[in-house]
Amino acid sequence: MGQYRISSTQLAARAAYLLRGNDLGTMTSAAPRLYPHMWSWDAAFVTVGLAPLSIERAVIEMDTLLSAQWSNGMIPHIVFANGRDGYFPGPAWWRAGELAAAAPSSPATSGITQPPVHAIAVQRILEHSRHRSRAVRQLAEEFLDRRWNDLMQWHRWLATARDPRGRGRITLYHGWESGMDNSPRWDSAYANIVVGDSLPSYQREDLEHIGDPTMRPSTAEYDRYLWLVEQMKSVGYDDQKLSEVMDFAIEDVFVSAIFAMACDVLAYIGEDYAKPLSDIRDLRAWAHRFRTGVVASCRGPSGIARDFDVRADRWIETETIAMFAPLLCGGLPRDRERALLRLFDGPRFCGHPDLRYAVPPSTSPVSADFRPREYWRGPVWPVMTWLFSWAFGRRGWPERSKRLREEGLRQAEEGSFAEYYEPFTGEPLGSMQQSWTAAAVLDWLD
Amino acid sequence: MGQYRISSTQLAARAAYLLRGNDLGTMTSAAPRLYPHMWSWDAAFVTVGLAPLSIERAVIEMDTLLSAQWSNGMIPHIVFANGRDGYFPGPAWWRAGELAAAAPSSPATSGITQPPVHAIAVQRILEHSRHRSRAVRQLAEEFLDRRWNDLMQWHRWLATARDPRGRGRITLYHGWESGMDNSPRWDSAYANIVVGDSLPSYQREDLEHIGDPTMRPSTAEYDRYLWLVEQMKSVGYDDQKLSEVMDFAIEDVFVSAIFAMACDVLAYIGEDYAKPLSDIRDLRAWAHRFRTGVVASCRGPSGIARDFDVRADRWIETETIAMFAPLLCGGLPRDRERALLRLFDGPRFCGHPDLRYAVPPSTSPVSADFRPREYWRGPVWPVMTWLFSWAFGRRGWPERSKRLREEGLRQAEEGSFAEYYEPFTGEPLGSMQQSWTAAAVLDWLD
Amino acid sequence: MGQYRISSTQLAARAAYLLRGNDLGTMTSAAPRLYPHMWSWDAAFVTVGLAPLSIERAVIEMDTLLSAQWSNGMIPHIVFANGRDGYFPGPAWWRAGELAAAAPSSPATSGITQPPVHAIAVQRILEHSRHRSRAVRQLAEEFLDRRWNDLMQWHRWLATARDPRGRGRITLYHGWESGMDNSPRWDSAYANIVVGDSLPSYQREDLEHIGDPTMRPSTAEYDRYLWLVEQMKSVGYDDQKLSEVMDFAIEDVFVSAIFAMACDVLAYIGEDYAKPLSDIRDLRAWAHRFRTGVVASCRGPSGIARDFDVRADRWIETETIAMFAPLLCGGLPRDRERALLRLFDGPRFCGHPDLRYAVPPSTSPVSADFRPREYWRGPVWPVMTWLFSWAFGRRGWPERSKRLREEGLRQAEEGSFAEYYEPFTGEPLGSMQQSWTAAAVLDWLD
Amino acid sequence: MGQYRISSTQLAARAAYLLRGNDLGTMTSAAPRLYPHMWSWDAAFVTVGLAPLSIERAVIEMDTLLSAQWSNGMIPHIVFANGRDGYFPGPAWWRAGELAAAAPSSPATSGITQPPVHAIAVQRILEHSRHRSRAVRQLAEEFLDRRWNDLMQWHRWLATARDPRGRGRITLYHGWESGMDNSPRWDSAYANIVVGDSLPSYQREDLEHIGDPTMRPSTAEYDRYLWLVEQMKSVGYDDQKLSEVMDFAIEDVFVSAIFAMACDVLAYIGEDYAKPLSDIRDLRAWAHRFRTGVVASCRGPSGIARDFDVRADRWIETETIAMFAPLLCGGLPRDRERALLRLFDGPRFCGHPDLRYAVPPSTSPVSADFRPREYWRGPVWPVMTWLFSWAFGRRGWPERSKRLREEGLRQAEEGSFAEYYEPFTGEPLGSMQQSWTAAAVLDWLD
Repeated sequence: MGQYRISSTQLAARAAYLLRGNDLGTMTSAAPRLYPHMWSWDAAFVTVGLAPLSIERAVIEMDTLLSAQWSNGMIPHIVFANGRDGYFPGPAWWRAGELAAAAPSSPATSGITQPPVHAIAVQRILEHSRHRSRAVRQLAEEFLDRRWNDLMQWHRWLATARDPRGRGRITLYHGWESGMDNSPRWDSAYANIVVGDSLPSYQREDLEHIGDPTMRPSTAEYDRYLWLVEQMKSVGYDDQKLSEVMDFAIEDVFVSAIFAMACDVLAYIGEDYAKPLSDIRDLRAWAHRFRTGVVASCRGPSGIARDFDVRADRWIETETIAMFAPLLCGGLPRDRERALLRLFDGPRFCGHPDLRYAVPPSTSPVSADFRPREYWRGPVWPVMTWLFSWAFGRRGWPERSKRLREEGLRQAEEGSFAEYYEPFTGEPLGSMQQSWTAAAVLDWLD
Repeated sequence: MGQYRISSTQLAARAAYLLRGNDLGTMTSAAPRLYPHMWSWDAAFVTVGLAPLSIERAVIEMDTLLSAQWSNGMIPHIVFANGRDGYFPGPAWWRAGELAAAAPSSPATSGITQPPVHAIAVQRILEHSRHRSRAVRQLAEEFLDRRWNDLMQWHRWLATARDPRGRGRITLYHGWESGMDNSPRWDSAYANIVVGDSLPSYQREDLEHIGDPTMRPSTAEYDRYLWLVEQMKSVGYDDQKLSEVMDFAIEDVFVSAIFAMACDVLAYIGEDYAKPLSDIRDLRAWAHRFRTGVVASCRGPSGIARDFDVRADRWIETETIAMFAPLLCGGLPRDRERALLRLFDGPRFCGHPDLRYAVPPSTSPVSADFRPREYWRGPVWPVMTWLFSWAFGRRGWPERSKRLREEGLRQAEEGSFAEYYEPFTGEPLGSMQQSWTAAAVLDWLD
Repeated sequence: MGQYRISSTQLAARAAYLLRGNDLGTMTSAAPRLYPHMWSWDAAFVTVGLAPLSIERAVIEMDTLLSAQWSNGMIPHIVFANGRDGYFPGPAWWRAGELAAAAPSSPATSGITQPPVHAIAVQRILEHSRHRSRAVRQLAEEFLDRRWNDLMQWHRWLATARDPRGRGRITLYHGWESGMDNSPRWDSAYANIVVGDSLPSYQREDLEHIGDPTMRPSTAEYDRYLWLVEQMKSVGYDDQKLSEVMDFAIEDVFVSAIFAMACDVLAYIGEDYAKPLSDIRDLRAWAHRFRTGVVASCRGPSGIARDFDVRADRWIETETIAMFAPLLCGGLPRDRERALLRLFDGPRFCGHPDLRYAVPPSTSPVSADFRPREYWRGPVWPVMTWLFSWAFGRRGWPERSKRLREEGLRQAEEGSFAEYYEPFTGEPLGSMQQSWTAAAVLDWLD
Repeated sequence: MGQYRISSTQLAARAAYLLRGNDLGTMTSAAPRLYPHMWSWDAAFVTVGLAPLSIERAVIEMDTLLSAQWSNGMIPHIVFANGRDGYFPGPAWWRAGELAAAAPSSPATSGITQPPVHAIAVQRILEHSRHRSRAVRQLAEEFLDRRWNDLMQWHRWLATARDPRGRGRITLYHGWESGMDNSPRWDSAYANIVVGDSLPSYQREDLEHIGDPTMRPSTAEYDRYLWLVEQMKSVGYDDQKLSEVMDFAIEDVFVSAIFAMACDVLAYIGEDYAKPLSDIRDLRAWAHRFRTGVVASCRGPSGIARDFDVRADRWIETETIAMFAPLLCGGLPRDRERALLRLFDGPRFCGHPDLRYAVPPSTSPVSADFRPREYWRGPVWPVMTWLFSWAFGRRGWPERSKRLREEGLRQAEEGSFAEYYEPFTGEPLGSMQQSWTAAAVLDWLD
């Protein structure tokens, strides 16, 4: 007998209901009953979903995040709402406020960063405000005025502290900074890390909400994650010293493409709202440099993007969603871009014949690294589908954007708004009622 | 230039966002920043809106309300969440727990009741659960099993304690019990009430959230409202004694029609879920008695329903939405029903040429009592539009139901989900972000 | 990979495109490239679909049909557009104009009738016209004025000539008159018919458009179909004589229920548009008589409706969609109606666990007569789903109406707008691009 | 009382119903009851609307048009379906088959051309076919294979015969070739044309379907239109000679921008479907040349595009929708493009405070040339709104594209699918039930 089918209005209503349910007042938790902490790129994606519902609330989300920005410009990857421990690794592990000169004394934050998708959130706020009352438009513009310098400082920090060699690629000192914690992209780099004896003992907490531990990183992996933090702490999270001491140093092509795109978005906003010409020039220059850096990483006629392992001094070759970085920011010659699009559409990714929905899995199903239920080693992440669909719209590919949107919405009709999904069966995995999944749906259905 | 137009998905999303935003955990406040208290018929309408979003949460709303039911069966019109004062008249004024034998010691409640629309809420829970997983269906059925006797007791109390003369009409001892606090229907009865010297001094709070006091009852009116409570307190809210001592005693034809309809709905549910036959027989008998009572109140060829003032021993003639009571419960001969429908559609109500939307105003625009901005003296109440649209669907009038729904949605696109609206201009009035207005929209857009 | 999913707007667009594509100017062919003839109940259902698109065109469809009405009141089951042969049995076989005193000389028609669903079409025209310009409303009202007497005469003929014994059930003299040509309901009656030697030889044409002949009636069946026509011709299609000579004479409970419902609909319209009171009284009386006749046919606690074989003088027991006749017209006591609804929802019909969509198959899948691909012996007919969903709305069951609509639309998304569907697989069967299937979709999506 | 509001499904249904109603079998008439002739760019836009309804039918539309292509590559602006006269100027006036060596002997055609939007239609056919069955995809691909050379020849003719000086701008020899017959853009050029004595007398027919002649060109204008045709006939429509003898020779910047865009679209298709590399190179080169030619025409910091009058040897300065040509094809430096977008959004065009909908009028309301009801001198043309919304999507401006779509749909809800609209009142003007207006709506609602 017929499967119950959810209507678009009901899907939108449930997504909004979820997002408000995860609302903690000035921040939105990633999922229900999770620790009341804010993740940097979660906050940006959540803001994208809040914008059609309430410009006021969307502005608050970004304000909360930016209030925790470090004085060097870094937006930390976690803002701890209330300083208390409980989440691991929490403030007591990071000790950022204590050890890092640039960290704010309050709120407590982690000591690393995450992908710079925040300009997108700002763009969505401003765009939605255009259709609202004068008062709401003014509120959005005041937000932009208030935060413009913070956003510039954030981008400037990425363009300088995180590209010390000026290669047009963002260097990460921890896999977590990529947002794709256990992606196969980092396997070789992590394999070379020797955990020091001085790593304190610890108790993981990420497994408690997940029934199946094979969907999460292993203990050996986790030790290395924490060891890297120890290294950071040993130099007081100093930008200059990190580039020297960290065992993990990788130029992340996906983050770099996001950054190039975000610089363009911010420059566009700056032009629209009459921000200083020097800022806009800087943003355009960074966009150009990082677009060039992304393209320089690409291999072969199909323009596959690669990360670069600074420590091992070699390119990293894996078949993951990051291969498609240049599709986000552009810059590839036409023929190579077309080839890369064919790869995206083809049987190694969205066109794999066994996929339930034609959306990009985090790792290619034909890769030896592929694990269909393990976090970033295979599952489909709706927020990534959204990112590509949004970026394709900006690239001038409305049909591609629409197709990803339609497939993403078909997947969402399952109803649990999961963090990620098994690509073949469509089974929801990870946290349910995930804020950014709901946010993606709300933007799509707007 | 073009007015911004909200899509159906966005309207649904905002309604859901609002409803979750007013969620206090186990109850939903009527509007943001209002006191955390629960009103009886608000709770039922809110449940109608929650059902498509979360059966679990909808069940909690009704459980919270029913947990405050009096031992005589009455569902009190206010459940005070935490016993604290602040709202006026609050627990300290009512002193129900202290004075009334039937009142629960906790939570604190008021000492009067409100219209019995709760069976509708139960029906919506069960209906939506049919399309969900087995676990959700079971949760809904367990709710029904758990609360069936409470619902029966509630209806039995209405059919006995509130119809002491067995006329098939519910007697109210306070205008507030009608839910239509300052309707012209009560003017003559209130005019006959002499406020005793013993009325304690008090401080109103209903004016604080409303800029324009002319939209709310006057002080003289308010004195009488409170005096009636004093009378109730003087007899310990005893059902028997109330019928003797109260200066205000009116057989409310609208509440009676709602009750007849609710008995039918509950009987239908009882049949579907195999509840005791004796209960179903009682419900059908009550439905019949009150339908007959409503019809008996009707005057003239167009079947206009009237309230009866027990103290003055005469019918009350006003042109308000309550005239249409028999359209809710049925029972009029065909020709009179058709005439009443024509009145509903015609220039005295929905068809008045100056109305912005073709929905019924609380008082006829051609009545001398009409005030376009004063609460129940003229404004359009979306929750009433919903009630008629829902009832018309059950009466076998799908086109009429659809038309009210469409007009109600057009009105809602204004975006503030107001408590009530000016009928000619569409200006939102009263509280904004009203829970039951959002609930109506969610049911319509499901 | 993901199945392509059609949006509501695209589904509506394709249905409208189809309907206009089958438009022959003043009539709509049942499906593309079929003979340009009009079937009586097809025309009515098509009008339901035309009404939201063009009141003007909808009126023309009904005018074309009614222009072929016989002088005794009968609406013939086929109007031959241009008198030419080609379709079999065509005008040359029927010879109605020549043999029947009541038949018009032009256009050529068949000599039998079909179910009286036309009042529904008239209701849809009037209802839609209410939302249109004054000119369009006037056009619809002029149509009603022009055709009221024809409609009355049509109903009067059914109530008299076709209920000669006054039992409140319509007698059919040919299975084709039921619209359900090869339903198991007629098997026993046809089995008793002995084809006379005088049956001329003939050439079928119904098999040409259908690849699989097992989906259509057999030759032996077809001989009997034609023999009955010979019997009719032998008495000049005279109403009185038919009741005496015809070997096939069955009181069809489904047609009777449709008639009762149609009388109510027409009476309601008559009241709204101030038609003669005597007409309305007649309609109400017929509605009452036929509702009573339907209920009288019902067997057992679950109120299963039965046809009556006049010649064999016994009730016909088959498990087909016609069992649910009283759900259309009402009249069953509550408990039996509830039991019948449970049967409709249960595993013998819509709730059969293997059904692709929860819509009623023409014959119960658990019946020995069930054939999943044979016309009225099992397949799902979208137009029947529509009829029940529409009737349930009028019965005051909005949720049931909505559920059938949703399942019917899910089925329609397959995209071929087939005449009927295999119930388990959803395979489209019979003619594709069927007008009345598109009409049902258009009414649902309005 | 409330204005009736049309739903998206009903709007889509009516648009599809209209398009099929205007279907003449192998061509779609521009509006009901117009002559059965095909206009070149109408056919392309109609194909855009047919593609979501029926790939098969969309292909037929383009095939019909391309079957009338001249041997030199020109797609004529009218294909006369049956050679018969009636429309003026018809085949007997043009005498193309007789006088032009390149014209086909059948069907009869006019002797001029229209804007090259056909690659868009081809793209829509291919895009929609991707979501359909294998058979439909194959049909679309076979169409492309069959017509690729014709499309190449069409573009090659434009790039050579119509850019004799290699300036990257298409030269028109008649205002009708622009599709914007009476635009103020042509006023100065027409003013210089002296109608010769040899102009035969004639009878206009364009006024018959339009009640108000002020919405159409004047007689003096019309004389010049026809005189230009006489000039063409005098040289047998020879491409080379036209460039020498024609009194009217203008480099049309809007057509040039469309051509640059169409070359890009066709190149993209060629790459996708493995067409000859030499063709793709040619297309890219033409796109580049014409984009450069458009940009070269632009004046001032806001990049306003201008037409060039070859005979008068000067730029034409008018404030019409053609000013925004570079927004279609790109190529302007960023700052000038931003300025041009501000002009598009601002009070001289879409942001004019009195506009009913925020869509571009054909001529600026602040221009002295503006006439709100005169064809291309002011009214809003939905098909132009569609063209910009489509082009903005390709330019990577999804929000702008969405806004135009939403405003265009709001305008369409009026329901008459008019050819053009009064910009301030929204009054529908010109033909009603216009095919390309319906096509725009269908693409938007897909």
